[in-house]
Amino acid sequence: MLIEMAKEARKAARQLARATEDQKNAALLKLADLLEANQEPILAANETDLAEGRTAGLSEALLDRLALTPKRLSGIAGDLRNVVGLPDPVGEVFEETTRPNGLKIHKQRVPLGVIAVIYEARPNVTIDIAGLALKTGNAVMLRGGKETIHSNRALVALIKQALEECGLPPGAVQFIDSPDRALVGELLKMYEWIDMLIPRGGAGLHKFCRENSTIPVITGGIGVCHLYVDAGADLNAALPVIQNAKVQRPSVCNALDTLLVNKAVAEAFLPRVVERLAQDGVTFRAEPRALAALKEPEAALVQPAGPDDFTTEWLALILGLKVVDDLDTAIDHIVENGTGHSDGILTQTDENAQRFVAEVDSAAVYVNASTRFTDGAQFGLGAEVAVSTQRLHARGPMALKELTTYKWVVVGDNTVRA
Amino acid sequence: MLIEMAKEARKAARQLARATEDQKNAALLKLADLLEANQEPILAANETDLAEGRTAGLSEALLDRLALTPKRLSGIAGDLRNVVGLPDPVGEVFEETTRPNGLKIHKQRVPLGVIAVIYEARPNVTIDIAGLALKTGNAVMLRGGKETIHSNRALVALIKQALEECGLPPGAVQFIDSPDRALVGELLKMYEWIDMLIPRGGAGLHKFCRENSTIPVITGGIGVCHLYVDAGADLNAALPVIQNAKVQRPSVCNALDTLLVNKAVAEAFLPRVVERLAQDGVTFRAEPRALAALKEPEAALVQPAGPDDFTTEWLALILGLKVVDDLDTAIDHIVENGTGHSDGILTQTDENAQRFVAEVDSAAVYVNASTRFTDGAQFGLGAEVAVSTQRLHARGPMALKELTTYKWVVVGDNTVRA
Repeated sequence: MLIEMAKEARKAARQLARATEDQKNAALLKLADLLEANQEPILAANETDLAEGRTAGLSEALLDRLALTPKRLSGIAGDLRNVVGLPDPVGEVFEETTRPNGLKIHKQRVPLGVIAVIYEARPNVTIDIAGLALKTGNAVMLRGGKETIHSNRALVALIKQALEECGLPPGAVQFIDSPDRALVGELLKMYEWIDMLIPRGGAGLHKFCRENSTIPVITGGIGVCHLYVDAGADLNAALPVIQNAKVQRPSVCNALDTLLVNKAVAEAFLPRVVERLAQDGVTFRAEPRALAALKEPEAALVQPAGPDDFTTEWLALILGLKVVDDLDTAIDHIVENGTGHSDGILTQTDENAQRFVAEVDSAAVYVNASTRFTDGAQFGLGAEVAVSTQRLHARGPMALKELTTYKWVVVGDNTVRA
Repeated sequence: MLIEMAKEARKAARQLARATEDQKNAALLKLADLLEANQEPILAANETDLAEGRTAGLSEALLDRLALTPKRLSGIAGDLRNVVGLPDPVGEVFEETTRPNGLKIHKQRVPLGVIAVIYEARPNVTIDIAGLALKTGNAVMLRGGKETIHSNRALVALIKQALEECGLPPGAVQFIDSPDRALVGELLKMYEWIDMLIPRGGAGLHKFCRENSTIPVITGGIGVCHLYVDAGADLNAALPVIQNAKVQRPSVCNALDTLLVNKAVAEAFLPRVVERLAQDGVTFRAEPRALAALKEPEAALVQPAGPDDFTTEWLALILGLKVVDDLDTAIDHIVENGTGHSDGILTQTDENAQRFVAEVDSAAVYVNASTRFTDGAQFGLGAEVAVSTQRLHARGPMALKELTTYKWVVVGDNTVRA
């Protein structure tokens, strides 16, 4: 069954690769309209998911993630209309050159082909991914969470309708309409038909895909993120940056996990950090020197760090605190404990900023800014498919261009190799 | 053992990433000098490999591939000196932008990290790969063929000496000094320490790596390559291009495997192709319509194609012949039977050239040129690590830039996300 779906996706991908930008945009707009015109059946399907979820005892947080509302549907439709406005990278010609023998060579941007996405409870991902894939001429194989299967089924039907009404192949969107877990294992082995796999979920899913997929995998989205407060940092300025990185949205991958503080400023600064962030409900895990830099009443708000506390992505209002001797020790800590996602320095010393940028090899390296900016929209890409923390193909926020590859086009005058 | 090597490589990679271009070039020049100054021990080690190979009954062709001579060593040293002259991509800043909130964002090119290479009988690959990796600040894990283990051991000792004498970490080049096949399986699972795997060998090795590696794999180098002779092609001009693609070096991946001929020119052209290429020793496998387009004496030189003859990479003086109805049929044949390596059209019709380029999604697509140009040096890259036929990260010839990735650098003024 899966193999037939993948073959159909491959065939559709070939057709989609030849679609014009106007055709693809028309389908995106049509889909946005269909989402708004069909709120009733979508919400009914979603209600089925919610009812089954309640019966299954899903948490309120999870139920909220999978819930659709008229407002959320309009938001999803609005996102699609935004994608219409983004430039289509497909067809871009770059690195043009003429060789001494007269061969004219350039690279031309083309769709990746077929992209598989494994995701969890959010039904909006179904539309997001399908929209970005369509814009870039890619076919997709979608495997959503079993908690949203009725919602996804309803949404995929509309995607197929939009494609068909705009003369594009409905086979370009393949939905694995079964909660059978064995299908994931099968999917991961289909490298002959699928060009890229994007897991969107927790660390366990990423690890499973990395260890079992024969399809190239974009792993990412797991961020143990650091800020380092340098000696001589502007502490008044640093405090709101740290607060923003930790509390603005603690449940996401680019939120701050560990604060490293130079020993020269630890006693002056750590009490202020604890005092301020505790007001936002943050709790703290401090190594001994950080604990020692605190007195009452702040010391009472802090507990000693356990052995795994500096390699944990908190996704919650918890912050690790550590005192370091110098910039080198800070960098060493980040390299050894980080996940290469988003790490920053707060400093007034240009030389230290430069060294930090040169030596911390994370997907996003920050100087005097919150780690919360690692995001496609914040970086000006207009969209986001994933945040890659692996090193091949793309790092950090991935958007439209990262769903493409290139081919070499070589034009000669009956040219032969000597 | 392997894990310790990989950890040492990772550590060395971090140091190498900070090396200046001058330091890296000095080590390359030093290595070139050492290769020329130590011809005697290298050739003695190579003689041991050759003697063992003869005892093991290796073919003359294989013995020739693993043989080193003073001239070949000088050639290898010369290649290293050429790499010195190539621009170092590491550190390049690109896609600079300033966001409305004042954040300054750019991408900066950085080494990939640790690259594993599995290769076969050619000892020159040891130096080639180590040189290109060093130039781009990457550490390598090398797994050469057991036939060249003595040569490789001698060469790796010199690489380590060159690194050390130039103040760079000798751990940057790790050589798996054992023919134990189980080590390959172990290596393929080390995704936490190795960032990219390049298999250099036959289709079996690529398939094994694709199906077993948890490290991102660059598969490639397998080319079932096509030329399509369009209706109205300049047949006098097409003939030497076909001859060049087939006979100039038949044993390599970009050599021609299948010739597709439009039915409008089949009877006029196929006899000329057979007559001309037979003089170079080419034999032919023709489907029925191609056979039918031939009369004696040419027909006697051609045998009927078997079921796998159009999906076989010949690597030899054999050419498949097929008549097609039109451009669409030619494209369909290439898409269905090709490997996405190098495919071309010979035509005088611009519109057909454009359609071929748009619809044939191979790593290199040719108009009126021999497929033999798919090569890093021929494309002006100055070097070649591999020819990728997969779609992620890089396609076609890979050189220095393809051994790098990028990080995002974000500089704020204590900027927070709203």
